[in-house]
Amino acid sequence: MKIKFGRIIEKGKSLLLAYDQGLEHGPTDFNDKNVDPSYILKIAKKGKYNGIILQKGIAEKYYNKEAPLILKLNGKTNLIKGDPVSTQLCSVKEAINLGAKAVGYTLYVGSIHEAKMFRDFSKIQKEAHDYKLPVIAWMYPRGKAIKNENSEKILAYAARIGLELGADLIKIKYSGDINSFKWVVKSAGKAKVLVAGGPKLSKRGVLKEAHSAIKSGAISMAVGRNVWQYKEPLKMTKALKEIIFNNKKIESALKILK
Amino acid sequence: MKIKFGRIIEKGKSLLLAYDQGLEHGPTDFNDKNVDPSYILKIAKKGKYNGIILQKGIAEKYYNKEAPLILKLNGKTNLIKGDPVSTQLCSVKEAINLGAKAVGYTLYVGSIHEAKMFRDFSKIQKEAHDYKLPVIAWMYPRGKAIKNENSEKILAYAARIGLELGADLIKIKYSGDINSFKWVVKSAGKAKVLVAGGPKLSKRGVLKEAHSAIKSGAISMAVGRNVWQYKEPLKMTKALKEIIFNNKKIESALKILK
Amino acid sequence: MKIKFGRIIEKGKSLLLAYDQGLEHGPTDFNDKNVDPSYILKIAKKGKYNGIILQKGIAEKYYNKEAPLILKLNGKTNLIKGDPVSTQLCSVKEAINLGAKAVGYTLYVGSIHEAKMFRDFSKIQKEAHDYKLPVIAWMYPRGKAIKNENSEKILAYAARIGLELGADLIKIKYSGDINSFKWVVKSAGKAKVLVAGGPKLSKRGVLKEAHSAIKSGAISMAVGRNVWQYKEPLKMTKALKEIIFNNKKIESALKILK
Amino acid sequence: MKIKFGRIIEKGKSLLLAYDQGLEHGPTDFNDKNVDPSYILKIAKKGKYNGIILQKGIAEKYYNKEAPLILKLNGKTNLIKGDPVSTQLCSVKEAINLGAKAVGYTLYVGSIHEAKMFRDFSKIQKEAHDYKLPVIAWMYPRGKAIKNENSEKILAYAARIGLELGADLIKIKYSGDINSFKWVVKSAGKAKVLVAGGPKLSKRGVLKEAHSAIKSGAISMAVGRNVWQYKEPLKMTKALKEIIFNNKKIESALKILK
Amino acid sequence: MKIKFGRIIEKGKSLLLAYDQGLEHGPTDFNDKNVDPSYILKIAKKGKYNGIILQKGIAEKYYNKEAPLILKLNGKTNLIKGDPVSTQLCSVKEAINLGAKAVGYTLYVGSIHEAKMFRDFSKIQKEAHDYKLPVIAWMYPRGKAIKNENSEKILAYAARIGLELGADLIKIKYSGDINSFKWVVKSAGKAKVLVAGGPKLSKRGVLKEAHSAIKSGAISMAVGRNVWQYKEPLKMTKALKEIIFNNKKIESALKILK
Repeated sequence: MKIKFGRIIEKGKSLLLAYDQGLEHGPTDFNDKNVDPSYILKIAKKGKYNGIILQKGIAEKYYNKEAPLILKLNGKTNLIKGDPVSTQLCSVKEAINLGAKAVGYTLYVGSIHEAKMFRDFSKIQKEAHDYKLPVIAWMYPRGKAIKNENSEKILAYAARIGLELGADLIKIKYSGDINSFKWVVKSAGKAKVLVAGGPKLSKRGVLKEAHSAIKSGAISMAVGRNVWQYKEPLKMTKALKEIIFNNKKIESALKILK
Repeated sequence: MKIKFGRIIEKGKSLLLAYDQGLEHGPTDFNDKNVDPSYILKIAKKGKYNGIILQKGIAEKYYNKEAPLILKLNGKTNLIKGDPVSTQLCSVKEAINLGAKAVGYTLYVGSIHEAKMFRDFSKIQKEAHDYKLPVIAWMYPRGKAIKNENSEKILAYAARIGLELGADLIKIKYSGDINSFKWVVKSAGKAKVLVAGGPKLSKRGVLKEAHSAIKSGAISMAVGRNVWQYKEPLKMTKALKEIIFNNKKIESALKILK
Repeated sequence: MKIKFGRIIEKGKSLLLAYDQGLEHGPTDFNDKNVDPSYILKIAKKGKYNGIILQKGIAEKYYNKEAPLILKLNGKTNLIKGDPVSTQLCSVKEAINLGAKAVGYTLYVGSIHEAKMFRDFSKIQKEAHDYKLPVIAWMYPRGKAIKNENSEKILAYAARIGLELGADLIKIKYSGDINSFKWVVKSAGKAKVLVAGGPKLSKRGVLKEAHSAIKSGAISMAVGRNVWQYKEPLKMTKALKEIIFNNKKIESALKILK
Repeated sequence: MKIKFGRIIEKGKSLLLAYDQGLEHGPTDFNDKNVDPSYILKIAKKGKYNGIILQKGIAEKYYNKEAPLILKLNGKTNLIKGDPVSTQLCSVKEAINLGAKAVGYTLYVGSIHEAKMFRDFSKIQKEAHDYKLPVIAWMYPRGKAIKNENSEKILAYAARIGLELGADLIKIKYSGDINSFKWVVKSAGKAKVLVAGGPKLSKRGVLKEAHSAIKSGAISMAVGRNVWQYKEPLKMTKALKEIIFNNKKIESALKILK
Repeated sequence: MKIKFGRIIEKGKSLLLAYDQGLEHGPTDFNDKNVDPSYILKIAKKGKYNGIILQKGIAEKYYNKEAPLILKLNGKTNLIKGDPVSTQLCSVKEAINLGAKAVGYTLYVGSIHEAKMFRDFSKIQKEAHDYKLPVIAWMYPRGKAIKNENSEKILAYAARIGLELGADLIKIKYSGDINSFKWVVKSAGKAKVLVAGGPKLSKRGVLKEAHSAIKSGAISMAVGRNVWQYKEPLKMTKALKEIIFNNKKIESALKILK
């Protein structure tokens, strides 16, 4: 089986822009500018991102080939408490018709609804691979059974599950230190590791996370709030690219943001 | 994808007549006149409404092109307490065979049954769009997890979910003030906002809500009880149209009801 | 859509024989004679009933065109307590192959399983109407949420749900007085109302209920125990027909039973 | 509809051999000899049984037309407590491909899972009848709602449910006395009654149960442990046949076992 | 029905390599070497194993005919407590496309989710047999209802369930002594018994278990941690083969490991 990564991986590396927060967190993450998907798509285009992550609804109404489309096939709100379940909202076929070059799916491992998400994932993985489309698994340990979502042990398990289930890329949180994250990356085997962004950090914080992740063996980072909540998104994009693609040090990349 | 709105949106605006209360609340909302669907359909025709919202059963037995048909595809009674679930009662194909120009679906966001409704909605959205049929999402925050159904934050989230899931129009409650509702409308992006009516208000109350909603960026209002429980439904219709389509002030529209 | 009522409605009226008690209540309702479906089918034939209501199993083994067949498509036992659910036991296609001229389905409105029954009903309603077959909805309010199964308010709501969901005939309990039942009938709109029989009453009691139901606007009665538990079933049949079809008074019909 | 009973009913009577205890109870019922399905199949052949009842797995690996095959389509273990559910393990089509001349299905009436089993049964009943294959329903009252599994009232109800749902043969426990079992048989109508064996009884006990069942109107008995746990299975078979097919008295049949 | 065992059984015996621990237990079982599937596949090839057991994801990315592929079709993590359920992750068709010569499925007998796993298994068993593919059932008693997972009684029941459901090979834990395991093997009938490995034992411990299992009638052993956590996996492989294929004694085989 030969998966077509296309522009999603360039020279073995990648920088992705995530914009599915509207469903997952609500517009509370947004301001008057970035609440508008057009604004984000402009950043994706000007920043030459390797991929833009969208839900079906946004893709249908706004997407116009600004960057390779990664369609998120499932999702949920943050309104309901308890062990999470993320339900399928778009089929592989629909994603392809919208121009997707990859599909994404969240698996909350450790949730009591784990089996349902595994089953649904196994079907979309199959269908996507029939089209040679890369499958990105958001591997998020979550639920009452998970004591520490960010421990090396649980993150390595999550990464491995992604490999065993057939993901091509595994989107996972950074564990906090290079040594432990190397084991996470190793556990993922031939599935490539993609570090998930998160809440807004300091400039140095973002760049440091990117730097450590790449040094640990991750090949990509998915950024969202740290780019489009930043005053100059394209500068932040450039700084991240220097680290990811050009092996620049943190201090060197920081100069771009001055 | 090009959705066909047809007469449902005229010159960018719209006034819809809702008559699905028989299922949602029971005939307790009705009197001897308006319990009869024929009476309502006459109002829809004479008032030149942009759409009449009906369940399958009423459409089959009564509808005769009095106004563009918006078929409500799911529904529930108000008999059962606890987190609500609204189940599919009609397919997109059946709706089209009955003459529907748009379909409607209620999503109780925040309900523990949210995932089920999201999944069902995602399928009817897909099928409707295959026919270029507009999809109207009733976005109602409801359930134990929802503290305040009418807060700006929760309404903006609900509107955004509608956009992310692919709705073309979002039927939502008015938040109570123009500033907050502008954020709700902004969160909905290219999905158009349609204000849901509600229990009977004073004449001035109804017109004020329409006026504020339109001023906030909503393009439409769905009226029910405030029209057909009013002594002169066609006069109320006219007053509302003056506000929605002709930018009239409240006092000016009120004169029609004198 | 033109539904074919055939002989099930004659001159706008109807008298039906129900014999699904074997499943719903068990043979406790039966004696040595009426436990035998052949005995009941003879009554249906000699009494020229407008319909005989049977489950699939009885229809397959006994039915031979004694009267128009109304196949009950769902059912349950009375063994399990708690909010009821009635599951589908026969498809529309099977019913037609058995010779059915109409299909029946019970909806326990107010039960926590309401959504499941609504969904299943919506599909059989669609399929039956594709064949122009009348759909009879047994509208029974039931479950913890229902305080008074026989109140005007709840019966009117139940009747209305039947209309909204697309039933052609609504089988419902008599409310106890003409004024309230008129509102029930009005709430059902173009869906015709059919009064459900019940446990054995006095001769006068049965005839009085039939008389009041017809006077309230119902067009039909479904009888079971009050006919086949009566010593002379055909005489009772005749008395009921005098009331339903010939507008006879109770006293006049009672003479037949002397 | 004409069901093909073939050799399963001979001259209106029948003796069946049941061997599904391995799944339902585990090998605890077996010894070194009868744990081997080949041993049982030899008894079925030499004893000229009217049917041998097997699960799919045993049929696939051992069955070779030793007697008409009755494939049990559902099953469960006895490991889990609480209201039972028996799930489908084999399709009608698979059964036919294995050579089945009839199919069997257990319905635990009164279990909270009753509706699920009714629904599944209704589908296999339909499919089997499309092939004119007899359907045998194991009618077992079970669950918290059932106070006395062997009372006349509950057994008659169970038998009737079998008839209403479309079973051709009803496998049911003997009620303990002829008078009450006659009512059970009568409640089953044209569905034939087949008495279920059970734990090992004394020689006289087995024969007496067979004798009483036949006298009550049952047409068949399904034996298992009372035959293959007996030292001379073929003699026991002969004794039972004398009672079932030749109207012999208990004392007369007992002589065969001396 | 003729199942094609191919190289999975050679001269009536078999040694399999299991590598599905990454999903079932996480990489906690692994070290820097054996976390890499390529390392394991080399052992499978050089050791001429009769089969290598993998999940879909590993097979897709790593498998290259190193040994006959046994695709595990279901799986779960060990993160969630309570009665286990293992969900389907791969179809029979996908397995075949990946080159599988057999498929595996875990059945947690005694779990409250037993019925769901039985139902899913019955379908994959059917589909696999349509392709003449051997079906290996992991028969694991598990859940609140199971007091002692390793008792003779429960293991014999588990083995028998595998036979009744149509498994061709039954993977089961060794009971601890030859006498009891003989009864387990006998209960499995024509379904062949395959002893499941487990946590790392002493050299002598592993060989003793293999020796006893074969002596009890098992035909195969599936090894994992005891091979690839051992310093010289190929020597351990050789020692096990001496016992399984060549009837060597424990002491004789131990010399290989010196």
